[in-house]
This record gives sequence, C-alpha cells and structure tokens, in this order.
Amino acid sequence: MTSDNQRTTLQLRSLVKDNSELEVSLARIPIPDPAPNEVLVRIEATPINPSDLGLLFAGADMSAAKPSGTADRPIITAQIPQAAMKSMAARVGLSMPVGNEGAGVVVGAGSSDAAQALLGKTVAALGGAMYSQYRCIPVEQCLVLPDGVPPAEGASSFVNPLTALGMVETMRRESHTALVHSPAASNVGQMLNRICLEDNIGLVNIVRRQEQVDLLKRVGATHVCNLSSATFVQDLTDAIAESGATLGFDAIGGGKLAGQILSCMEAALNRTARQYSRYGSTTHKQVYIYGNLDPSPTEIDRTFGTAWGMGGWLVTPFLQKIGPVAVEKLKQRVATELKTTFASHYSKQISLAETLNLDTIAVYSKRATGEKYLINPNKDIP
Amino acid sequence: MTSDNQRTTLQLRSLVKDNSELEVSLARIPIPDPAPNEVLVRIEATPINPSDLGLLFAGADMSAAKPSGTADRPIITAQIPQAAMKSMAARVGLSMPVGNEGAGVVVGAGSSDAAQALLGKTVAALGGAMYSQYRCIPVEQCLVLPDGVPPAEGASSFVNPLTALGMVETMRRESHTALVHSPAASNVGQMLNRICLEDNIGLVNIVRRQEQVDLLKRVGATHVCNLSSATFVQDLTDAIAESGATLGFDAIGGGKLAGQILSCMEAALNRTARQYSRYGSTTHKQVYIYGNLDPSPTEIDRTFGTAWGMGGWLVTPFLQKIGPVAVEKLKQRVATELKTTFASHYSKQISLAETLNLDTIAVYSKRATGEKYLINPNKDIP
Repeated sequence: MTSDNQRTTLQLRSLVKDNSELEVSLARIPIPDPAPNEVLVRIEATPINPSDLGLLFAGADMSAAKPSGTADRPIITAQIPQAAMKSMAARVGLSMPVGNEGAGVVVGAGSSDAAQALLGKTVAALGGAMYSQYRCIPVEQCLVLPDGVPPAEGASSFVNPLTALGMVETMRRESHTALVHSPAASNVGQMLNRICLEDNIGLVNIVRRQEQVDLLKRVGATHVCNLSSATFVQDLTDAIAESGATLGFDAIGGGKLAGQILSCMEAALNRTARQYSRYGSTTHKQVYIYGNLDPSPTEIDRTFGTAWGMGGWLVTPFLQKIGPVAVEKLKQRVATELKTTFASHYSKQISLAETLNLDTIAVYSKRATGEKYLINPNKDIP
Repeated sequence: MTSDNQRTTLQLRSLVKDNSELEVSLARIPIPDPAPNEVLVRIEATPINPSDLGLLFAGADMSAAKPSGTADRPIITAQIPQAAMKSMAARVGLSMPVGNEGAGVVVGAGSSDAAQALLGKTVAALGGAMYSQYRCIPVEQCLVLPDGVPPAEGASSFVNPLTALGMVETMRRESHTALVHSPAASNVGQMLNRICLEDNIGLVNIVRRQEQVDLLKRVGATHVCNLSSATFVQDLTDAIAESGATLGFDAIGGGKLAGQILSCMEAALNRTARQYSRYGSTTHKQVYIYGNLDPSPTEIDRTFGTAWGMGGWLVTPFLQKIGPVAVEKLKQRVATELKTTFASHYSKQISLAETLNLDTIAVYSKRATGEKYLINPNKDIP
C-alpha cells in the first residue's frame, strides 16, 4: 500500500448541527494505510437498508430538503423536527460516516499473512462507513465471497440475511414452532420465506397488496394474508391456527397490526381450548417490532389475555446475545446460500453523488418493497 | 362433620347464557363432607379484587343490569356485548362459583392428623369459590393465620401480597434494581411501597390525584409522580433517573401511560449516555401490564429505541414459574407481616346478598382506590 498513501477517498457524511439542521455531503479524506491485520477494500456495492436511513437522515424532513454544492460534490440540507432532535444530542457537531454493510475487492493489505492472503479477493463486511470509495477493514470482519460472486451479489450478506436467520433462531430459542412476519414481501421477508421453506417451518406472511400475495405465492409461500382484504382478520386467524405460530416479527410498527397479530394468535389458540380460562390462553404469544415503517403509535387492543409480550428486536444485540460461535454458523450458511436463499434484488445502482439527489432520495427513503437501491461508491468517479 | 352433613351453604354463582345474558345469583348447595386431608371453613371474609370482577360480571354492561329475585336471594341480569362474548365460549351454560381468596374459621376436618390439627384455627386460602358460607379446602392450601389475626385481616393474604412480592421478585430475577408502579395508591401499591422501603429498593410511584401523592408521602414514599400534573413527564423522568428504574408494573393498561414510562426510562438513560447510539440506549426497559383499569387500547409512541419490552403479567403463572419452594418463602413473609407490610383496608363489609345490590355493584365495580369491599358470606344470615 505504500504506493497508495497519497490517495484520497470520497466518503458520504451526515452532520447534525446544533441549529437542528442536517447536512449530508461527500467528504474527501486520505486513504489510511492498512494496519498489519487490515485490508483496504475498494467498495463496489453497498445497499441502502432501512437501518441506514436513521443515521443518514437523522429524522429530518426530507420532503423539504434543499440541494446545494456541485454535481460531483452535492450537499443536501434539511430541518430536523424538535421531537427528533431530542435523541440526537450525542451526535450534534459530529460528521458521521454512513453505510452498515457492503462488498468490494481487496486492493491493499497489511503485513500479516491473513491480510496478505486476501489480496485480490472479493469480500463482504459489516463495518459501518461503507458509503466510501475505499475502506480499511480488519480481516476478521471480512466474509470472503465464494468464487464467482461479484460485489453486487454479496453487498447485503449481513443485515438482511442475519435478520431473517435471527428470527428463526429466536423462534427456536424461545420455544415457538412457527412464525408470523410482516411486511412479508420485503427483501428480508422473501429470505425468511425461503429459509422457512427449506427448514420446513410454518410461516404466515402478511403483505399489503394483492401483487405481493401473488409474488409470494409464486415462490411457494403457504400462508399469505393481505392486510387490505376485508377478510384479513379471519384469514390471519385461520393461517395462525393452521401453522401454530405464536411468535411474530413486524417491521411496520405503528398502528394496530402488532396487536392484531396477538389477538389472532389468541383466537386461534381458543379454538381448541378445552376449558374456560378467565385470563385467556396460558400459551405465551409474542410479537417483536423490528422496524419502523409506520412511525405512528402502536395501538394495542388488549383482547388476548395476559400471556403476551411485545418488544423491540434488533439483529446486532441479538447476535451479541447468542455469541460468536452461533453467529459464525449463521454467517457460513449465508456465504453458502448467497446466490439462492440470500439473494438480494435491487431496483437501481447509484453513485455516491446520485445518493444525494433529491429525486433519488424521494424514492429510496420510502423504503418501499421492490425499491431497494445499491450504491456503487466507485461508479462515475472521474 | 357427621352432624353437619345435612346442612347447606349459600354460594354466589355467575352464569353466562348462550343468549349473551349474564345471571348472577345465590345458589343453595349441600355442604360436602371434608375428604381426609380437607377442612371445612366457615368463610367470614373474602375481598372483591379486580381479578374477581372478570369472572363475576363476564364483561357485561353492569350499568344497565336488572335486579330480580327476593331480598335474601337477589338475582342480577345484564347483557354481555358481542365482543366480550367471544372469549366466553368455554363458560356458556356453566354456573360458576366466584371469589379467589378469603379467610375463616375451620369448623370441620377430615380424618387426617393434619386436618384435625386445624380445627378451630383461623385460616386463609387461595382456593376459588370463596364467595360461599362454607367451603371445603385441602389442608396444603391453607395458610394458618398467626394468633390474634381475625379473618377480616387475613382475607387478602394471597392476591395482593403475592402480587406486590412478585413484582419485587421479578425485578430481581430480570436483573433490574428499581421499580416504577402505577397506580401506586392502590392496595397493592401501598404494599409495594412498604416492601420497597423495608428492602431498600428504589420505587417510583405514579398516582392520579394530589391526595394520593399526600397519602404516599405520609407513609414515607420517596418518589411520587402525579399523572394529573402538568410537569408529569419531567417529574417521572427525574424520578426514574434518580432511582435507576428500568422495570415498570402498570395496572391501568389503556392509554399512553405504559409507553410514557418506557419513554421516560429512555430519556433518563440518555442523560448519562456517553456516545450517540442510533438505536437508542442499549439498556433493556420493560413494562408489565398487570391490570385493566382502563380497558381502552394501549397506545405506544415508540420513542425509546429498540431495547424495550411490554407484556402481560399475572401472579399465578409467575408463582408457577418460580416453583413451590420460592412461593413458600413469599407466603411465610406474608403471614409474618400480615398486620404491617401486608395490611389491607376495606371501605365496607357486605353480605352475599348485598354483593348483588345494584348500588353496591356501582361502587365496587369501579375498582376505585380506597373503595375496596370485603364480603362476609356469613353476615346477615338468618
């Protein structure tokens, strides 16, 4: 890497100012020399996950964002509502890099054998700051992609695959036997559907539109319930009764759905109740909220007895809880099945500069099913 | 008991009919002979707990209830809304006895030494069907009250004391160090306050009126927050920050309070946060809903990161979970501290017939703080 030590890299930065203004821009910073056990990766593919948007836009009102700067070095500014500023205190004034995960080619390596062995390989990593042209990454954080898997196909090797696998792992560890998932046509949802089909686990998919019912049915889903259908509650109860699901994962978060899942579980359990229990079924019913697609309040109509739980769920603390040995097992499954079970689809590949285009932001910040964007930080670089 | 085997006992019964009508009445049934290991108890005190009301009134609209029958043998009928009928399927047509707990004098005993030893003693029991003049109870379910404790003082030896102790036990088992409780001026709340003072545990009491603040302050409560105060959220956050509470128990259930407790815990934790965490504090925050004073939906404004949980909590499954050895320890503490920590107060003692008086029902079914009624099934019996 000695020959490269004058080079610089473009890196996307998000800054919250103390006047409640968000500024997103591209910084040019020196490329560091890799430490002995690090590799320098030229990032060629890094997805915009829902989990990146919070850090990227800091809860600002992007519909009123303003562009400035140049075509190559655009700047976006937007106002952050006071309510959102409350949780931003610790990042005010810090120019923060963004991008949880990505993949690229190892173009430099530290002195260790392990680092040198990766030269020229295509690797994926969950390292943060991936919206950068170049990034130094410790060897142990790299997942070497199987031969023939290009960076674009390995870019999402962590967040979504480990989230979907984490749901199944949670199910097993908390003694449930089947799952409810919403919204099920998402990237995570389709992975979860493939895992459950492979592992023979009952899965009740909740979607919001008929075409998503069709999509999941085409890929073999057994139970698909359409939130927009007039018979949704009945359909969900039937599907839960057939599958025996007592655990749900919901990324919508707001509104009545999470509570409805619990109510339908209770109704399904009561269908086979042999005697009256004034406190409802004694079987524990659980829904984890793992996303925030609808930021409105969660409304729980408590019509499901007393044996219930709801809570937040996030893949990183879950992985910490299960420990490195269990995590490694999950990661190896991801690597092995990257072109099948864990294949991701993107609607568009964009450059770092395009990531700051207001029309583009309007699309990817919706987090709509089928509108997942992939950044190639080395696209359109002169 | 041979001399008594012709006698009968009055017993309160609740019947749900398939036409959605509730009928509450007094049945006269034969007094059974005690089995070898049972005692016959003349019940002299049995409280109306919130947990009895569900079985007693089956969710019927008691504001439109109709009286019939005679003064000695009143009958109450009321309509059950269709929504409530859904969970009643398993009890339709069954005339069900009511009354979780109570106390009385052992007036008969089976042949075993253990049963004979209890003759003449005052005992408390958590046996169900306690709204009866006489009740056969297995010896192992009896808690012998210390000398000088009359039935009225031992009537509530189980539900409220074990609920309050169960909260503290849950706190310890789930690795929290302080508690939030609402509504804290209740019978359970006052017990919990005494336990926490004795055991030196931080407790944040939430009440709904100034006189309840005064009441708890008079008995030594450190933190009392008034829901009706304009500064409630600030007060609650301060109290949580001072006590370090990350676990709450809420019997109100409906509305925003349970979510507010989590939000204030998060705000308190963020006061000392050293670095920005986009997913909020990593400390797990938990609220258990253990009552239903406000049956409206629980509204959760998810402004507290992802490390949170909410769920139902009920003393009986909790006791089953911790097992008989741990339960016995809690029970002995109750017996020892029955006149102090676990003293209950009642606003009125009523007969079985008075329990079915509409004006009386209007008072005790409100479950208002300070309006707890005690039934003496042997009061006013000719």
